[in-house]
Order: sequence, then structure tokens, then C-alpha cells
Amino acid sequence: MQKVGVALLGLGVVGSGTYKILIGQHDKIREIYDIDLTVEHVLERNAEKIDALGIDRSIASTDIENVLKNDDIKIVAEFFGGIEPAKSFLVKCLLAGKSVVTSNKELVCKHFAELEAAAAKGKAGLYFEASCVGGVPIIRTLTDAMQGNDIREIHGIINGTTNYILTRMADEGLDYKGALAAAQRLGYAEADPTADTQGYDAAYKLSILSSLAYNKHVPLSEIYREGIDKIGAEDIAFGKEFGMTVKLLGISKNIDGKIEARVHPVFIKDDHPLASVKGSFNAVHLNGNNVGDIMLYGRGAGDLPTGSAIVSDIVFAAGKSAHKRYNFFKNKLTSKDFVKDFSSEYYIRMKVTDKAGTLSKISGIFGKFGVSITTVLQKPPTDDSGIVSIIFITHMTHEKAITKAIEAIGSLDGVNEISNLIRVEG
Amino acid sequence: MQKVGVALLGLGVVGSGTYKILIGQHDKIREIYDIDLTVEHVLERNAEKIDALGIDRSIASTDIENVLKNDDIKIVAEFFGGIEPAKSFLVKCLLAGKSVVTSNKELVCKHFAELEAAAAKGKAGLYFEASCVGGVPIIRTLTDAMQGNDIREIHGIINGTTNYILTRMADEGLDYKGALAAAQRLGYAEADPTADTQGYDAAYKLSILSSLAYNKHVPLSEIYREGIDKIGAEDIAFGKEFGMTVKLLGISKNIDGKIEARVHPVFIKDDHPLASVKGSFNAVHLNGNNVGDIMLYGRGAGDLPTGSAIVSDIVFAAGKSAHKRYNFFKNKLTSKDFVKDFSSEYYIRMKVTDKAGTLSKISGIFGKFGVSITTVLQKPPTDDSGIVSIIFITHMTHEKAITKAIEAIGSLDGVNEISNLIRVEG
Repeated sequence: MQKVGVALLGLGVVGSGTYKILIGQHDKIREIYDIDLTVEHVLERNAEKIDALGIDRSIASTDIENVLKNDDIKIVAEFFGGIEPAKSFLVKCLLAGKSVVTSNKELVCKHFAELEAAAAKGKAGLYFEASCVGGVPIIRTLTDAMQGNDIREIHGIINGTTNYILTRMADEGLDYKGALAAAQRLGYAEADPTADTQGYDAAYKLSILSSLAYNKHVPLSEIYREGIDKIGAEDIAFGKEFGMTVKLLGISKNIDGKIEARVHPVFIKDDHPLASVKGSFNAVHLNGNNVGDIMLYGRGAGDLPTGSAIVSDIVFAAGKSAHKRYNFFKNKLTSKDFVKDFSSEYYIRMKVTDKAGTLSKISGIFGKFGVSITTVLQKPPTDDSGIVSIIFITHMTHEKAITKAIEAIGSLDGVNEISNLIRVEG
Repeated sequence: MQKVGVALLGLGVVGSGTYKILIGQHDKIREIYDIDLTVEHVLERNAEKIDALGIDRSIASTDIENVLKNDDIKIVAEFFGGIEPAKSFLVKCLLAGKSVVTSNKELVCKHFAELEAAAAKGKAGLYFEASCVGGVPIIRTLTDAMQGNDIREIHGIINGTTNYILTRMADEGLDYKGALAAAQRLGYAEADPTADTQGYDAAYKLSILSSLAYNKHVPLSEIYREGIDKIGAEDIAFGKEFGMTVKLLGISKNIDGKIEARVHPVFIKDDHPLASVKGSFNAVHLNGNNVGDIMLYGRGAGDLPTGSAIVSDIVFAAGKSAHKRYNFFKNKLTSKDFVKDFSSEYYIRMKVTDKAGTLSKISGIFGKFGVSITTVLQKPPTDDSGIVSIIFITHMTHEKAITKAIEAIGSLDGVNEISNLIRVEG
């Protein structure tokens, strides 16, 4: 029986969930994994949170030195979020030979190299399963289940807030503002929802997953990012007519060694495995050259789902005599190693004056820029304004070509508005 | 850099796929995992297979002694299938301290205790990710990603052949025989399809997955098993009207410490995540008390998907200084630890003579046995036979009650045939 002391830095939602799981699963973990996990110290300034969990105040403090100087503590789990003081504390722990487990995606995304350098120096482990897609074992899959594959593509619904909002819009015909307000009321979105709705949270995760998948550092700065706030109820309704659903996807690809990475709304066909991922659920679809397509699905957030991933990492780390070392960030890449002018199919919605010749002029411009159209939908006017919506769906085309075509179409006489442009993925 | 010698026992479909992956991924595995894998010996009697892969005949033989006496061989991957000589060879390898990687589900299911005892004695590892659901990391998930959970339920599409047959039936209206013949022509079903169509293959996997999930040995003998050969095109058509799809599922549950395990056809609702798993794809849906619902999806068979899991286990095993020990089979269980009279909802299709009073008599018997009905569908006769089909769907009820009710209904005057009974899962 191996006795392993654990410290918890912070008793917020996930920290408290982790504590509950460590207590509730203690005996089972001892029986199956032969590891006796004990919480040796918690760092938390709020006495109410400490008491609510029934933690003896004698093992609680606000001083990281109490963790560093305790030799029984082999593993430190961090729940502060944000960069500081999390980074400084974790670097100290790693240098002191204590393995670190974290769900802090911003920290892992932005400062992986520094953390890993400290971990290597201290011969400690760095574990971050909980940083991406909550309790879904996507990191374990990338690092310990696909070693025999060149991973070629990642497509993921990796933000629960936006998926919840888009699901409410699709199922109930709500507009974006109404669905966001509903998500905020139910605690699925924060008061300031920007990090979720503008795709920052998804971009952190895509950076981590892509760096592991391709063994090349894919920094935030190389990820194209676009939020969901411009998606209209009208787009979702038109999508239904074409058998398509809007999702905020994190997409990355390794195309002959060049990396493409982007987070933006995407129309996917209703029969795509990701289309049925609803509400706050997350899913990641991977393609490996040998295993083919695989998909993992589950809850991407929450105290117990994320705590489940933290506890998994703690047990996994405790069972290791030597920890995995990461070297992806050592492959120095330049901007040329990233694809910028990516290709996609596009859905374009515009408002035009309902008169002869307009469609022909628009089509002419698409043709001029080499954009080939698969589908056009124009419906009879529903009011007396003389303005109608037209939807175009294109064949696969380059981002640059579509941007130029749209610019030219927007300035056409008779075209009142380019209402939206949403990428479409097979 | 750690140099690790590997032996391959057999160069069949998966053995050859594994060899190709080991060669193709050699440099990448060395770069990312710091492990230099070399194939030191292959056991294969067919020279054509050896030559086809470009393997030097000097490292090929048919004598296991060549593997046992080679100290450079740390890991042995087995592809013989069946019980012997696989079992004897692997026991010898394990006792000699060589870790074993296998996709042999029948062997792992039936002789786990013997293999694990030899592994423990030889301080070797026993790895069998490839035995269940091909390249989908379901074993890694159960053993290394859900340590902080009481796993409560498994629902899996864990046999690609039957899923392929049922998908063809659903999509094209084929009957069972037609779909089976199509599957055989395309190589998705064997000439003797019994192991797949009667659920034996799925039961081996369910035994392995359930034993790991609940840490209790769930032997084949305690798994209820029923094949798909009685599913009619008519059942699938009626299911569509109710928004349901037939799948062969492996289901197991841990209900307050008692285990229920069964493999049989099931109607699931079209919006269930498993309903969209089509063709030869597999998926496993798990419920843990902390992580909630998660699902893994991918190819359950094939040379490269299964080879991908084998290579993953080889790399995983090579990185371990101490191997995981399994103790689930040490919990001695008796028949009383298994639920036999399980509960389900039921779809029942019967043919009755179209005359007044029949429906009332049938309903009366259901009521007498406490079986409550949610849905009845009777359609006008389509011919002059005077015989019509009636479908009943029940509320949740015990297997014993439904069996008795069906027996009594079958002997009613006016009931010509109980055509089929299929369980329904929410």
C-alpha cells in the first residue's frame, strides 16, 4: 500500500467537488489501485468553505510554504484559475518535486513551457486532464491511447456554455440574447460571458489538444477565433431546411506538417456524430491515420465531472515512478508553419431588393472570384418591404476568395446587407 | 532512450496491421515517448505472410522458445485468437517476465485469473485494450480515467457485425437474411456468423468491461444472451413509427452491489446517443456517479484500428516500471450476487384474428400480471386473411411478469402468434 499525500489549492466549485470525491472514493481507490490518498493540506482563505466540507482547520491555511515544506505531500491540485498566483505556486511545487494536477486551461495554454521546465527539473509530473472537456478523458486518449497514430484532425464541441445557448436557439427558436439570458439564469453562462461566447475558452483548449495531437506547439496567437453572438434565429431556421445545425467548433488539422487551428461557429450536417451533442454536453471527434474516426462525449464542466478528471490524474500520477515528459514546445515553429488561408464551404445569408437581375449579378461576382455555388434558396417576400433573404451555400473554397467576393457583393446596387457568413463542414 | 524489443505471435490481419504501425510510427514514438521499439521476433508458419511484410526470415520461426530465450524481448503481442496455444504461450511469457499485449477477447474473458496470476508472479504486465472495441480506448478509460467514480451502468454497441446488419435492415428495409448475406459478401460477417449474431462476441467483451467497471468478476455464465436473428423487417418498420431503432446492446448495471449483465437486441429512442452509431461503428456509453454520462465511439475492428490499440498498449507497457495488478476476480461471487429477474420496458408484436373482444382479452391478461401498457398500435388489415398485427409497448416491468403474461396471451383464442418481444431502453 502506497500512501500519497495531496494538497488542494483552493476550495471553489471544482476544488470542493474534488475533495468530496477524494473522501467518497478513498476506500475504492485503495482497494483497486493500492493507493491510500490523504488530503494533507488545503489552501483557502474562506473559513466557511473549509467548514462546509468538514475539513479540520488545522490542515488549512493561506500559505503555500505549508505545502512546500510538507514532505508527505506528493501531489498538488490547483483550483485558483487565472495566471497568478497559480503559476508561481505551481512552479515552486514542481521544483520541489511535487507533481501538479490542474484544470487551469488558461495557465496550461499560456505557460506550458515554463511549468514543464520546472516539472522536468523537479522530476515531478504535470497533469491537466481536467483542463479540457471536464470528465471526458481526451488528454489520456491523446497521450496514452493514440500513440500509434498520426493524428490528422480534431473537431470538438469544447465549450458547454455556447453549446447550451445554441441548443436552446435550435430547439426553441430563441434568438441569441434570449438564449444567453436563459443560460445566465441557470448558471450555464457567467454575468460577463465573453470568455465563452467569443471562443476564448474553446481556443485555450484547442491550443492544448492540438499541441498534444500534433506534437507541435500551437499557441493561442495562431488560432483564428470568432464568437457565436452574430448567429441569428433566422440562420438556425434556414440551417434546419438544409438539414444542418450550428455548433461552435474548435477545429484543427495537420496538413502535411502545416497546422490549421480555428474556433468559430460551423454548420454541420444533422447526421454528423457531433450534431446530436446537445445542451451543455461536449464532444471531441478525432481522426488518426490508423484508428480512423473516434469520438468522446460527456460533460465538459461542473464540480463533479471536472473533479472526476482531477482525481483520475491524482491516481494516475500516484501510480507513476517516472512521469511523462512533454517536448512539443521545443519544436520552434514560425508563422509559416500555420495555415492561414484555410478552405471551407460557406453559408451566406444576405438581404436583397426583390427585383430582376440581382441574383444574376451576385452569381456573376461569385463566379469571378472562383467561388462555386451548390445551393441557393430564395423565398417569396413575407412583407411589403420589397426586401428578401437569399441563402447561398458554396463548394469548398478559400477564405480569401470568399472574403473578396462578399466585399464586392456587399457594394452591389440592390444588395442591402450581407447578414451572415457561417462556415459549413461535411 | 529506452530500447524495447517486441515479439509478435501470429501475422494474421491484426498482427500484420500491428507490424505495419510499429514500422510506420517507429520514429514518432521515439520522438514523443522516448522509446525505441524494435520487432525482435515473429511467430508465424506462413512464409508468404512474413515475406509480404518484408520481415527478415531470420527473425521468424514457429517456436515459442525463440521468444522466451531472447532477453531483448520485453513485450509479447499475441494474435493467434482462441484458447490454445495462445494461453500456454502467454503464461510462459508472463512467468518469464515479459509483458503481454493481446486482442484475444475469448482468452481474456475465460482465463483472466490464470493470466494475471502468471503476470503477477513474473512481475509482468497484462494489457488487453484491443480485446474490446478495437481502437476505442475503453479499457484505458475504465482503468485510468474513471478511478474517481462508482461506475453504475454500461450500455454498448460492442459488435460491429450485428450493428452493420441492423443498420442495413433499418436503412434499406432488408430482412435479416438479406442483410446478413450482404455483410458476408463485404467481409463484415464470417461464413459461420454465429459468434457475432448470437451475441457471444459481445458477451466476451461485456464480461471484460463489466469486471473492470465494477471490480467484480462477471463471468460469461452470468450474462444473459440473445441474438439478432429473430428481428424482423416488420419490427424495424414499427420501431420507426415509434421513433426507435434496434441495436444489439451489451448492458450491465451495478445495482446496490448486485450485478446485472445481458446482451440482446434493444429498441432505443432515436435521440439516444447510441442510436446514431451506424454501420460497423461501435460505441460504449458509461455512467459514473461523479462524471455522469460519457460515451466513446469508433471502429470496433479491423487491422489498423485494432493494431492501433495493440501499439498503444505496447507503448503504454514499455513506459511502466511497475505494472497494474488486477484483483477483481478475487472477489468470490455467487449466483445471488447477480440480478436475474431484470426489469425493462418491452415491445411485443403479435398477430391476432381481427374480431371484437380480442384486444380486451389481451389487455386483461397484461393487467392480471401487473404489466402496464403505454402504447398500443393496431393497423387496419392489409389483406383478406382477417389477421392483423398488434404492437404493445409496456411500462417498466419485471422479466418474469412479462414472460408469464406472454405465455397466457399466446394460448388465447384469437391470438395466432406472438411474433416478437424486444426490450426497450430509455
